[in-house]
Formats: sequence, C-alpha cells, structure tokens
Amino acid sequence: MDSAVLLDILGNENRRRILRLLSHKPCYVTEISDYLGVSPKAVIDHLRKLEEVGLVESRTDDQRRKYFNISRNLRLEVDVSPYEFDMKSAYPASPSLDVSTCQYLSLNVQYGTQPDEREGDGDPETVSDVEAGEIATLAEELNCLEDLKSELSLAQRWVHGRITNVLDQLSEEVDENGQNRIRAEILAALAAGAETVRDVGREIDAPEHIVERHLASMAERGIVEENSGHWMLSG
Amino acid sequence: MDSAVLLDILGNENRRRILRLLSHKPCYVTEISDYLGVSPKAVIDHLRKLEEVGLVESRTDDQRRKYFNISRNLRLEVDVSPYEFDMKSAYPASPSLDVSTCQYLSLNVQYGTQPDEREGDGDPETVSDVEAGEIATLAEELNCLEDLKSELSLAQRWVHGRITNVLDQLSEEVDENGQNRIRAEILAALAAGAETVRDVGREIDAPEHIVERHLASMAERGIVEENSGHWMLSG
Repeated sequence: MDSAVLLDILGNENRRRILRLLSHKPCYVTEISDYLGVSPKAVIDHLRKLEEVGLVESRTDDQRRKYFNISRNLRLEVDVSPYEFDMKSAYPASPSLDVSTCQYLSLNVQYGTQPDEREGDGDPETVSDVEAGEIATLAEELNCLEDLKSELSLAQRWVHGRITNVLDQLSEEVDENGQNRIRAEILAALAAGAETVRDVGREIDAPEHIVERHLASMAERGIVEENSGHWMLSG
Repeated sequence: MDSAVLLDILGNENRRRILRLLSHKPCYVTEISDYLGVSPKAVIDHLRKLEEVGLVESRTDDQRRKYFNISRNLRLEVDVSPYEFDMKSAYPASPSLDVSTCQYLSLNVQYGTQPDEREGDGDPETVSDVEAGEIATLAEELNCLEDLKSELSLAQRWVHGRITNVLDQLSEEVDENGQNRIRAEILAALAAGAETVRDVGREIDAPEHIVERHLASMAERGIVEENSGHWMLSG
C-alpha cells in the first residue's frame, strides 16, 4: 500500500479508534458506533474508506450480522529530520525469510519454528498436556519476539540519531546554500561504489545534470576527484 | 510528540510535500507556494500548524527574509495486523547509547566514532588532505548506517510477520469470541515472569478484573494454573 494513502487514512482520530477497537475483536457497526459515540452513518463512512484501501474486511455471521475486522498486516515508518522526510510502508516479511544473511545485523533468536499441524483430539473444551506445552512455548516465543521488536525499534532510533549526526558533520564541510542532504547522499553513493554520474544519479534517484553540478563543485574544493568519467572520494 | 498529533499533521498531502521540500533545503513562503502550486495563505496556514507542534521553525536572514526548516528529529512507527494497531513515535536515541547491551540483537558496526573538533585552517574554499580523508570516512559511515537502517527495517518486518504467525497459532487454542489478542498478551506476560493478576494487568495495561476473568476461563481449559494467587503456564 502506498504510504501517502495510508497516512491519509490514519490522519483521522475516529478511523484510528476504529482500528484499535477492531484489533481487539471483530465488531459490527452498532457496537463501533456506541463505543465511539459517533453516528452509525459516520462509522459506515469510515469503514467504507478503510475497506476501499483494503485495511478492513467484513463477514456475515449465522444471524446475518455483519462483522468487520482488520484484514491486512502492514507496517509504516516515517523518519523526520532536518535532512530527511522519509516514509515507507511495507507488508511483513515472510517468517521464512533468512534474516541471518544481514551484513550489519545479527538476531539472537531461533529462526523458523514451524507450527505443529497435528489436530487436537478429545474434548475441545480442555487442552491436553502436549497442547498446553505448545501453548507455553508459543507464549515464550511471543514474549521474546516482542522484546526483539523493542530492541529493533531502539536500534533504529539509534541509527536515525547517528545518521543525523554524520550528516551534521558532513554538512559543515560540503554544504552549499543548505543543499547538504543531496551532497551527503552523493558522497555516500561514491563510498558505496558508484563511479559514474549515471550510477550516482540512479542510486540517489536524482537527475544527472544536478548530480554533475554538485560533483563539479565538490571537485573544485578537493572533496572528490574525477578520472575519465569515473568519480571517487578524495583522501 | 504524541503519535496521534503527528498522524493528524502527516494526514495532509500538502504538509507532507512541504516537509519533503524542507528536508532538501530551508525555504521561504513564496518558494514553497510556487513549488506546491498552492496559495501563500494556505502555505502559511500549514507552516503555522507545523510550527505549533514543533516540527518546523523559522529564522530570518540578513535580507530579512524568513526561512523555514525542519527543527525536529523523530521517528514514527505504526503496526497494523488483525491483532494489533500500535503506533509509536520517538526521538532518535542518543548516538552514545550502548546498543551492544541488547539481548536479542547484535549490530556489526563501529560504535561511537567521535567528531574531530579540530578547526579547518587556511583556505576555506578548498579542503586539506586530512579534511578530505575525514569526509571520505564520514561518507562511508553514512553508507553503512543507511544499509543498517534497511536491514533493521527488514528485520522488523520479519518480526511483525512472526508475531502475527504466533498469534494465529495461539488464537486457535485460546480464542474466545475473538478476544485472542488479550489472551495471547496475558500468556506472554506469564512467560515473561509475571505471576499475580496485578503484575499481569500492569504488564499488559489492562484492568485487573478483566485479566482475572480470562485467567479463570483459561484455567478451566487447562491452559494456565493457579497456586495461592500465583499464576503460571501449564505444560
């Protein structure tokens, strides 16, 4: 889903309250309307918008009552700094994704426990010892994953702070009329191995003539060097 | 900053475009208005809202022209799933934070390079070899941090997928009328070491009488056990 569409949807307090309610349990319109203190008509209108973007879906139960529930897993991240306004939304990565191939990151968790497909037997109202053991294992895994989620969040906040810090330092050296972000990105692209104006432009998603102008100006100051169309960092 | 306030602010396309523009360079009202194709009056209105929440600030230059720039570093995360609607905003963590104490996470990066405080000497228009070397080092660090940021994002999407997966499995066992999220949270709290109704209620931020009701009902089914006021997972 497009981040802009998602932000438009989430920019309304009542839609956020509806989503929070539905994340606890599926609800029908009157329930939502009573809980929010908002007219059923307004609730229906919000639900329609949430359905249109695919965040919510409905099903009708045996008593022909229509229940709404959240139908989608997704994650939105927005970073704001003097150098950056970045928004990104993404579906969850597959649980079978191999996170252990990350270059800068190791997770100290067990990967890819598979659900046990065995059916429960006997009385559905009570669980067997094996099932109780499975539930305890899942509860421990959930607890560990939630801790990991907090740690990843903290690490991301740390990276965000460090990036701003590095950009502050870089901009002291390479700034020209506040165009520091693009210059820092150009230098980072060179550090990552981009060599030609075209490579750099593709890497940072900027027009080639703008990249060229900044490279030329930074070359005059001895920050970068060119050798027959191949650019590199000086020093 | 409150996540709800931030989402209200970001739920407007023109305010997002203003932030994106200001992340490239500080701008004055006419510039923004020309770029967006929106009246100066509307731009001033958006800027006022952005200033009120502290996202944007202005300064006046020598020609008495008022420039606006982004004044804050922050990060917003929203997770949506059938079990969850979680939004969180946070300032960047301090670069000196010790991320190496994380339990489930290791980062393979250098920690805490300090900026060199030495003043540049001689011609301010060109950089010395030492300065060029420092710029190259910073550019490499920026490049590495941006890769790490992508990896952390990917890891978080993976965790998000795994949590939903575990909750899917748990809810098959412990669900009662769609109240699966709170039951899963109660079980995770027990797995994390909470023992009393009060501990669990505090951990998951729920009223004690509700926690008590779910615990009693799960005890009947043999999922949890009580021993003189101390609860634990069965199995």
